[in-house]
Amino acid sequence: PSSIFLISSSHSLFLLTSGLGTAGLPMVTRERRLRRKIKYYFMNPCEKYHARGRKPWKLILQIIKIAIITIQLVLFGLSNQMVVTFKDENLMTFKHLFLKDYVDGGIAPYALYRQADVYDHIEYVIQQYRLLHNITLSNHEYEEKHSVYTPLLLCQEFYRNGTIYPSNETFEIDAHVDTAHVPALSSRLISVKITFVLKAINLQTVRHRELPDCYDFTLIITFNNQAHSGQIKVDLENEVDINECRQWKVTGAYGRSIYLTVLFDCLIIIMCIISFALCTRSVITGIQLQLEYSRYCRKHFSKELSWSDKLEFVNSWYILIIVSDTLTIIGSLLKIAIQTKVLTSYDVCSIFLGTGTMFVWMGVIRYMGYFKKYNILILTLRAAFPNVIRFICCAGIIYLSYCFCGWIVLGPYHEKFRTLNTVSECLFSLINGDDMFPTFKNMQQKNSLVWMFSRVYLYTFVSLFIYMILSLFITLITDTYDTIKVLLPFY
Amino acid sequence: PSSIFLISSSHSLFLLTSGLGTAGLPMVTRERRLRRKIKYYFMNPCEKYHARGRKPWKLILQIIKIAIITIQLVLFGLSNQMVVTFKDENLMTFKHLFLKDYVDGGIAPYALYRQADVYDHIEYVIQQYRLLHNITLSNHEYEEKHSVYTPLLLCQEFYRNGTIYPSNETFEIDAHVDTAHVPALSSRLISVKITFVLKAINLQTVRHRELPDCYDFTLIITFNNQAHSGQIKVDLENEVDINECRQWKVTGAYGRSIYLTVLFDCLIIIMCIISFALCTRSVITGIQLQLEYSRYCRKHFSKELSWSDKLEFVNSWYILIIVSDTLTIIGSLLKIAIQTKVLTSYDVCSIFLGTGTMFVWMGVIRYMGYFKKYNILILTLRAAFPNVIRFICCAGIIYLSYCFCGWIVLGPYHEKFRTLNTVSECLFSLINGDDMFPTFKNMQQKNSLVWMFSRVYLYTFVSLFIYMILSLFITLITDTYDTIKVLLPFY
Amino acid sequence: PSSIFLISSSHSLFLLTSGLGTAGLPMVTRERRLRRKIKYYFMNPCEKYHARGRKPWKLILQIIKIAIITIQLVLFGLSNQMVVTFKDENLMTFKHLFLKDYVDGGIAPYALYRQADVYDHIEYVIQQYRLLHNITLSNHEYEEKHSVYTPLLLCQEFYRNGTIYPSNETFEIDAHVDTAHVPALSSRLISVKITFVLKAINLQTVRHRELPDCYDFTLIITFNNQAHSGQIKVDLENEVDINECRQWKVTGAYGRSIYLTVLFDCLIIIMCIISFALCTRSVITGIQLQLEYSRYCRKHFSKELSWSDKLEFVNSWYILIIVSDTLTIIGSLLKIAIQTKVLTSYDVCSIFLGTGTMFVWMGVIRYMGYFKKYNILILTLRAAFPNVIRFICCAGIIYLSYCFCGWIVLGPYHEKFRTLNTVSECLFSLINGDDMFPTFKNMQQKNSLVWMFSRVYLYTFVSLFIYMILSLFITLITDTYDTIKVLLPFY
Amino acid sequence: PSSIFLISSSHSLFLLTSGLGTAGLPMVTRERRLRRKIKYYFMNPCEKYHARGRKPWKLILQIIKIAIITIQLVLFGLSNQMVVTFKDENLMTFKHLFLKDYVDGGIAPYALYRQADVYDHIEYVIQQYRLLHNITLSNHEYEEKHSVYTPLLLCQEFYRNGTIYPSNETFEIDAHVDTAHVPALSSRLISVKITFVLKAINLQTVRHRELPDCYDFTLIITFNNQAHSGQIKVDLENEVDINECRQWKVTGAYGRSIYLTVLFDCLIIIMCIISFALCTRSVITGIQLQLEYSRYCRKHFSKELSWSDKLEFVNSWYILIIVSDTLTIIGSLLKIAIQTKVLTSYDVCSIFLGTGTMFVWMGVIRYMGYFKKYNILILTLRAAFPNVIRFICCAGIIYLSYCFCGWIVLGPYHEKFRTLNTVSECLFSLINGDDMFPTFKNMQQKNSLVWMFSRVYLYTFVSLFIYMILSLFITLITDTYDTIKVLLPFY
Repeated sequence: PSSIFLISSSHSLFLLTSGLGTAGLPMVTRERRLRRKIKYYFMNPCEKYHARGRKPWKLILQIIKIAIITIQLVLFGLSNQMVVTFKDENLMTFKHLFLKDYVDGGIAPYALYRQADVYDHIEYVIQQYRLLHNITLSNHEYEEKHSVYTPLLLCQEFYRNGTIYPSNETFEIDAHVDTAHVPALSSRLISVKITFVLKAINLQTVRHRELPDCYDFTLIITFNNQAHSGQIKVDLENEVDINECRQWKVTGAYGRSIYLTVLFDCLIIIMCIISFALCTRSVITGIQLQLEYSRYCRKHFSKELSWSDKLEFVNSWYILIIVSDTLTIIGSLLKIAIQTKVLTSYDVCSIFLGTGTMFVWMGVIRYMGYFKKYNILILTLRAAFPNVIRFICCAGIIYLSYCFCGWIVLGPYHEKFRTLNTVSECLFSLINGDDMFPTFKNMQQKNSLVWMFSRVYLYTFVSLFIYMILSLFITLITDTYDTIKVLLPFY
Repeated sequence: PSSIFLISSSHSLFLLTSGLGTAGLPMVTRERRLRRKIKYYFMNPCEKYHARGRKPWKLILQIIKIAIITIQLVLFGLSNQMVVTFKDENLMTFKHLFLKDYVDGGIAPYALYRQADVYDHIEYVIQQYRLLHNITLSNHEYEEKHSVYTPLLLCQEFYRNGTIYPSNETFEIDAHVDTAHVPALSSRLISVKITFVLKAINLQTVRHRELPDCYDFTLIITFNNQAHSGQIKVDLENEVDINECRQWKVTGAYGRSIYLTVLFDCLIIIMCIISFALCTRSVITGIQLQLEYSRYCRKHFSKELSWSDKLEFVNSWYILIIVSDTLTIIGSLLKIAIQTKVLTSYDVCSIFLGTGTMFVWMGVIRYMGYFKKYNILILTLRAAFPNVIRFICCAGIIYLSYCFCGWIVLGPYHEKFRTLNTVSECLFSLINGDDMFPTFKNMQQKNSLVWMFSRVYLYTFVSLFIYMILSLFITLITDTYDTIKVLLPFY
Repeated sequence: PSSIFLISSSHSLFLLTSGLGTAGLPMVTRERRLRRKIKYYFMNPCEKYHARGRKPWKLILQIIKIAIITIQLVLFGLSNQMVVTFKDENLMTFKHLFLKDYVDGGIAPYALYRQADVYDHIEYVIQQYRLLHNITLSNHEYEEKHSVYTPLLLCQEFYRNGTIYPSNETFEIDAHVDTAHVPALSSRLISVKITFVLKAINLQTVRHRELPDCYDFTLIITFNNQAHSGQIKVDLENEVDINECRQWKVTGAYGRSIYLTVLFDCLIIIMCIISFALCTRSVITGIQLQLEYSRYCRKHFSKELSWSDKLEFVNSWYILIIVSDTLTIIGSLLKIAIQTKVLTSYDVCSIFLGTGTMFVWMGVIRYMGYFKKYNILILTLRAAFPNVIRFICCAGIIYLSYCFCGWIVLGPYHEKFRTLNTVSECLFSLINGDDMFPTFKNMQQKNSLVWMFSRVYLYTFVSLFIYMILSLFITLITDTYDTIKVLLPFY
Repeated sequence: PSSIFLISSSHSLFLLTSGLGTAGLPMVTRERRLRRKIKYYFMNPCEKYHARGRKPWKLILQIIKIAIITIQLVLFGLSNQMVVTFKDENLMTFKHLFLKDYVDGGIAPYALYRQADVYDHIEYVIQQYRLLHNITLSNHEYEEKHSVYTPLLLCQEFYRNGTIYPSNETFEIDAHVDTAHVPALSSRLISVKITFVLKAINLQTVRHRELPDCYDFTLIITFNNQAHSGQIKVDLENEVDINECRQWKVTGAYGRSIYLTVLFDCLIIIMCIISFALCTRSVITGIQLQLEYSRYCRKHFSKELSWSDKLEFVNSWYILIIVSDTLTIIGSLLKIAIQTKVLTSYDVCSIFLGTGTMFVWMGVIRYMGYFKKYNILILTLRAAFPNVIRFICCAGIIYLSYCFCGWIVLGPYHEKFRTLNTVSECLFSLINGDDMFPTFKNMQQKNSLVWMFSRVYLYTFVSLFIYMILSLFITLITDTYDTIKVLLPFY
C-alpha cells in the first residue's frame, strides 16, 4: 500500500497510514477498497462532489438551518423583550408606589433604623394599597376570587419566647419560630411580610400585533430583621404569572395568530431532526470504518490503533451539530409550550435556544477550514487547546490558593472579597485589566496588619498573573503556531 | 532581459520580473523602453528627481494640502463648538425651567408613577411657559406669526375605545389611535405631548467676531404611557433651527465677514481638484503600463499576469489620495452651504471633512516609507493585513455566536445585554480590558440557573478571547515581521 | 561511574554527574551505593513505589491534609462572616442613629462648616442616646456597672491658651493641649469626643446552631478640628469586644457544641506536626546526602560542588510544606483560642490560616509536575523567575523615580497622588489597564505648568511601561520557554 | 594592533576597533598608549579599582547624593502636604459658607436657571459675609487696612447698549463691555463678580513643630452669563497668599528653626556642584580622547569616525547626572527662597526637585549594568529605543488622523471628544485598556448617521491599535532582544 493518503485533519493518522505504505506489502483488493472508503470519508463536500459528483445536500441543509434558527432566535428575543420590559417597569412602579421615600438607583441599601419608621412604612403600604385605584397610572387591579377581592396579608415571624438583657449579658430564648398577623416590634421579631396580588393587562402588545396577556403580580414586601443588628432591610419582590386573558375583543388591529410561529418552530424541529439523523449516520459510518480499519491493522501489521487515531474517525464537527440539534429541538419544543401558554419558563427555553444557536454558528468555522489559509488559524487554536487546558490547570491551582487566602483574610474588610465567588470574579477581572485602584483604595485601613497584607497580596498576585502567566500563554500559542506551520503541508 | 529590477513594493512582482531576466532572451529596444518606463513608474519622488531631475511638484502640493486642510478643520471645529455649547446649555435650561423637580445627571429615569403627579407636571409646564419672561435668564421669547404669539399645543393620544377589567381577565379594545387636546387620564391613554416654540439669539458670538444667529427651539415634552406599566416617562426634546437674523446692527465690535472663510474653502476645493486630477492621471498611466506589460508578457512568455501582479501597477496611495480629495471637496461644498445658512447639516459636513482629513493624514505615512527603517513597519502592517482579516473572520463567527447566545439568555437580566448592539459592544469592551467585575456583579441573582449560565458564559468567553485569540494575534504579527525582515533586502 | 543518572529537576546537576560518568573511573561499591541513594532520593513517589514498593504514605498524608485544611478554612470563614456582618450592620445602624442627616454612601465627606451645626449635632447625639430604647430596632442596651448605667462621656481638647488675630497677622499660643468636659467652640478647640458603650447580643447565630455571643460596642464620635480650616470632620468609630454571655438558656434549637470544632482543629494540628516531621526528616536526609556527595566529589575529582548544585539536594517543595505546616499550626492554635473566647484577634488568625492554606494548595502543583507535559510549564515559570526578579529590579527603579516625581509635583493637584503609597498604587494600576481617562481628567487645570507636566508625565510613563517594559516581560518568558524546551529531554 | 578590545557598550565601536586589529599594522608606542587610555576610559569603577587601584570616589559621592536628595524630597513633600490640605479644606469651607445649597461632589454643574435664584444667591453671599464671625468654625477674619475693614466688592459686566427682540429676529447691540457696581439682571448682562479677602492662620503646624503662617484668601465668586443661554454658572475661586505672621509668640511647643533645613539644602547644592564638576571633567576627557582617536584613525586608516562611534565617547550617563544636578541645584535654591518666604512658587520648585530626583534615581540603573545579567535588559531597552521611536512616529500619524476625525465628528455628541486634547487622552486611554463600554454608551443616539459613524470609528480604531500596533510593539522588542543576546558576548 504505497499511497494511502488521507485528507485527514490528523497529522498522526497521516504518518501512520503513509508509514504503512512504505512497508511494501502487496496490494489486495479488499485493502484497496478500504483505503478508498477511508479516503472518501475524510473528504470535504467540495472534494466529494468532484470525486463522485455527490451533491452537498448536507451542507445546503446546514446553511438553511443556520438561517432559520437565527431568525427564530431573533423573533423570540424581540417578543421576550416586551415581556421583560413590562415586568421591569411594573416592578419599578410598585417600588415607587408602595415603598415610602423610595429613590431609584440609590447607593445606600433601602433599610430602616428607627422604630417609628417601621410603623410608618407598614402603614404607608397598607394605605397605598387601599387607594391604589386613585394613584396608579396603569390598569392595576386587585385580584378577585368568587367576586370577593383577595385581601392584603400581613404576617410576622418571631421567636416563640425570649427575654434578652444585654446589659446583664444574660438571655433566654426559645428558638421556635411562630407566626402572627398583628405587627408588634420586639427584640424577638424576625421578619414582617406583606403579601398581596395585583392584576394587569399588557396592552402594549396590541401595537405589535400580538394579543395582550393577563399578568398576576404577587408582591411580597419583606421587613427583614434576621440579623437583629438594628437595621431592618426592606425588600419588594415581584412574582409574575402570565396567563391568556379569559375574554377579549380587539378591533382596529388584529392580534397575529400564533399558529404561524408555531408552524415555523415545527419546521425548525423537522430540519433539526433530519440534520440530527444525517450526522448520526455519518458518525456511525465513521465508527464502522474505524472498526474495520483497526481490525485490518491488527491483522496485517499486528498493531493496535492508538486512541488518538481512533478518535480521528469520529468527526468532532458532527458531534457539535448533533449537540446543537438536540439543544435546538428541546428549545423549540419549550418555545411552542410557552407560546401556547402551557409553560412560562422563558429562561430554560432561552438557554436551550441560545446555546443551540451558539453551537450552530460555531459550526460555520468548519466550512472556513476548507480554505487552506483559514485552516492554519483553526488548527493552531485546536492544537494549542490541550496545552492551554494543561496550563490552566496549573495556573488554576495557584489562582485557587489566592482565592482561599484572599477570602479568609480580606473578606471582612473589602466588599469584593465577601464570598468565594466574588473573590474569584474580582481576581479574574483584575488579571484581565479591571480597575485596580478602587480595589486597592477600598481596603479599609483600620487594621494596619491586614492593610499591609492586602498590598503584598495584590502586588504579588497581579505581577505573577499578568507578567508571568499571561506572557506564558502567548508563548504557548506562538509555539503551537510554529509547529503547525511546519506540519501544514501534510494536512 | 537580465536585470529588470523594479523598486516595487511587491515581492511577487520582483520575483516575476527577475525571473524573466534569467530566461536569457535577446534584449530588444521596445522591451528596454518598457522596462525603463516601469522602473521609472515605481520610483519615489526623490529617485525621480535624481534620475530625470523632475521637481516633486505633486509632493509639494500634497504637503501644502495637508496644512490648509488641517487649518480648515480646526477653524470649522472651533466655530462648530460654540453652536453646540449654545444648543446644549439651552437644552439644560429648558429642562430646568419646564420639568418639575428636574435634577441634572440623576441616575433614575425621569418618570412619574402617580395620577396626581401627572396633572401637576402638565400644569407646571403650562404655568412656567406663561411666566417665561419673568423666569428666564436668557433672551428667550415666544414665536410670533403675523404679530400673534403662536400658542402652546397640548395633545393627547389614546385608543379609540376600551374597557379593561384585569380582575376578570377580560378586555375589549379598539386599537385605533385618536388624538384630542384635553388631557384626561384613563387606561386608554397612550401619550401626552406638549409642543411650543421659543426663539433666542446667540449673542456670545459677538465676542468672537462672528455675527449672532437667530435660533428657533421647538420644544416637545412627551409624557409616554405606551407601555401601560404604571410608569409614565417624561422626555423633553429640543429641535433647533438656525437662521440669519432679519435685522441687525452691531457697534463696538465687528462681525467678521464670512467671505474670507468662503474664499479659503474655495482655495481648498481648487487644490483638491488639482491633486485629484494629477493622481487620476498617475493611476491611468499605471493601468496603461500594466496593460502594455501584460500584453508583452503574454506575447513573449505566453503567460498571464496574476491579479496580484496587475494590482501592483495601481498605487494604493493614489487611490487613498483620490478618495480623500473627493471627500474633502464634498465636505468643503457643504461647509460653504452651511456658512451661507443654506444648509444646517453640520453632521454630514463634519463626517465628510473629518474622514477626508483622516485619509490625508494617513497618506503622510507614505512619505515615511521612503526611509528604509520606517518601511519595515509599514510593510509588516500591510503584509499582516490579509491574515488579520482572515483571522478576524473566524474569530468574528465565534464572537457572533456568543453575542446571540448572550442576548437571548442574559438580555432580560442585565442592562448591558439588552440589545444585540450593546451585547456586541459589551463583549468587545470586555476583550479589550473593560471593567469585568461590574458585569459579573450586576447580573441579577434571582434565577440561579441563569446566574450559573452567566458565570460559565463570561469565564469561557474571556478566557477564549483574551488568552487564545489575542495571543494568536501577536503570533500572526510576529510571524509576518519575521517574513518581511528576510525579504526586505529585495524591496 | 558511567551512568550516574539523576531524575533531578536541575539541569546543571545532571550535566555534572553525567560528566563524571564519562571520566571513566573504576566503579567502587561505595560509590555505587551513593549513586543508588542519590538516584532514589530524587525519585518521585510513583517511581519509588515501582523501584522499592514503598507505599506513598507522605503523598496520601498531604492529600488528606489539603482536604481537611480547606474544610477548616471554609468553616472558619463562614462563621467569621456572621460576626463581620453583625459588626458592619451595627456600625451602619449607629451612624444612622447618632449622626444627624447621615446618608449612606455619600460622596461628600461627613463634615460641618457652621457653628450652629456643631451644637446641633452634639445635642442630637446626646438626645438620641437618651432615647435609645424608644428608637433602636435591635436589642441595644446601655452598659451597666455595679447596676449603674455607665454614662456618656463628652470630652474636648483645646490649646491651653491662645489669642489669634488674623487681621493683624498676630497670634499668641500656648501649644499645651488641655482637656475639659464642657463643649465650647473657640478658635483654640482641637477636637470634641463623645464616648459611650452599648451592648447587644448576636441572636442571629441561634438559627445557625451556634451560641449567641455578647457584644460590647464602644462608640467614639469625634468632631475633628485639628486643621483649623473651618471644616470639622465628624467620624463615628466602633470598637467591638466579643464575650461569652454570662447566663444563657436556649430552647427549641441547640447551640452546637464547640468541642467538635476544637477537636477538628486538634486533628489538623496533629497532621501538620506529622507532615512537618516527615518533611524535616527528608530535608535532613537530603543535606546528609549532599555532604556525603560533596565529600566524595572533593576526594575523587578534587573539585567543590557549586552552590546551585548543593541547593539541588534541598527539595524546595519540602520547604514549602514545612512553612505551610508551621503557619497552619499557629493559625489553628489561634483559632482554638478564638473559639474558646480567649482571644479575639480574628485577623492574625486568618492571615496565618490563609497563607498556610495558600501554600498547601500551591504545593499541589508539585504533583502535577510528575506528568511530563505539565512539567514544562512549571519549569518555565521557575527558570524565568531569576530573570524576572532581575528585570523587576531595573523596572522598579524607574518606577520608583516616577513615584517620587509624581508625588512631589502632582500630589497637591490630584487625589491619587496625595501619598507615596497611593502614587505607587495608581501607577501600578495604570500599567495593568486601569481607567486612565479619569486620571487625566481629574488633574486640576488651575496651573497650566503643572497641567503640561502631568500630560508629559502620564504619556511617557504609560508608553514606557506598557509598550517597552511589558513587552520585554513577554520576551523574557518566551526566551526561557525556548531554552527549557530544548533542555526538557534531560529532565 | 591585533587586540584593541574595548569594554564598550557599543557593538559598532567594537567591530571597528577589532577590525583595525586584523589590518596587521605594526604596533607603535603612541598607538599603544592611546589604546590603553581608551580602554581605561571605558572601564567601570570596579575595573578601574582593580586596574589602577583608583578608589571609586565618584561612585560613593553619587550614592550619598541619592540618599540625601531623596530625604530632602520627602521632607519637602510632607511640609508641602500640610499647606495643600489647609488650602483645600478652606476652599471647601468657603464653598459651603458662601454658595447657597452647595453640595459636595455633585454631578450636576453648580448653575442657576431662574431670575429669582440669581438675586437670592447674591444676597446670600452678602449676608453670610456679614455674619461671618458667627458662622465660621475657623479663625477667619476680614482684611484690615489702616484699621478699616476692606469691603466686599460686587461688580457687574454688561454690553454697553442692546435691544434684542428674538421674536422679530432683530437685534441692535453695542459690544463694548461696561462695568457697574449695582446688580441688575438684563439680557445685556455678561457676568457678576463678588470679591472679598479673608485672613486666617494655619495653627495646625504648631503640632508639627513648624511656625504657623498667615494666609490671605482672595475669594472671587463669579456668576457667569457669557453664553446667554439661560444658564448662569456660579464659580468660587480662591487665590491664596502665604506670609510670615507679623507678631507671634508660641509657648508649650517650639517652632523648629528653619536654619537647619536651609543648611541641609546648602549641603545638597554643594554636593551637586561637586558631582556636576566631576562629571563635566569626565565628559571633556571623553571628547578629547575622541578627538585624538579620530585624528589617529584619519591619519593611519584614512577614514573618518562615524557619528555613532563619536557619540560612544560621550557617556550618556554623565549627561544624565549633569542634567539632574542642574535641576536639583535650581530646585534647592527655589526651596530656600520658599522657606524664607521670599517666593511662593511651590509648583516650579517641585517640578525642578521632582525631575531632578527622578533622573538621579534613573541613574541608579547604570550601576546595575555592571552585573552582566542585568545588562542585557538595559541594553535591549536602549537598542529597541530608536525602533520604538520610529514606530511611534508612524503610529502617531494614524493616531493623529483619528484624533482630528473624532474631534470634528463626535465632538458635539460626546463629552470625551469635546477638545482635541481630551480626544487624544480618550483614545490613548482606550488603547491601554480603559473602559470602552461607557464611551460607546454615552454617544448620544439622536443622530443615527453619527451613531453609525461612531461605531465604525471605535471598532476600527481599537482593532487597529490593540490588535495590530500593540502586537507589533512586542515583536519589535522580541526582535531586539534576540539581536542583543547574540551580540552580548562582545560587550
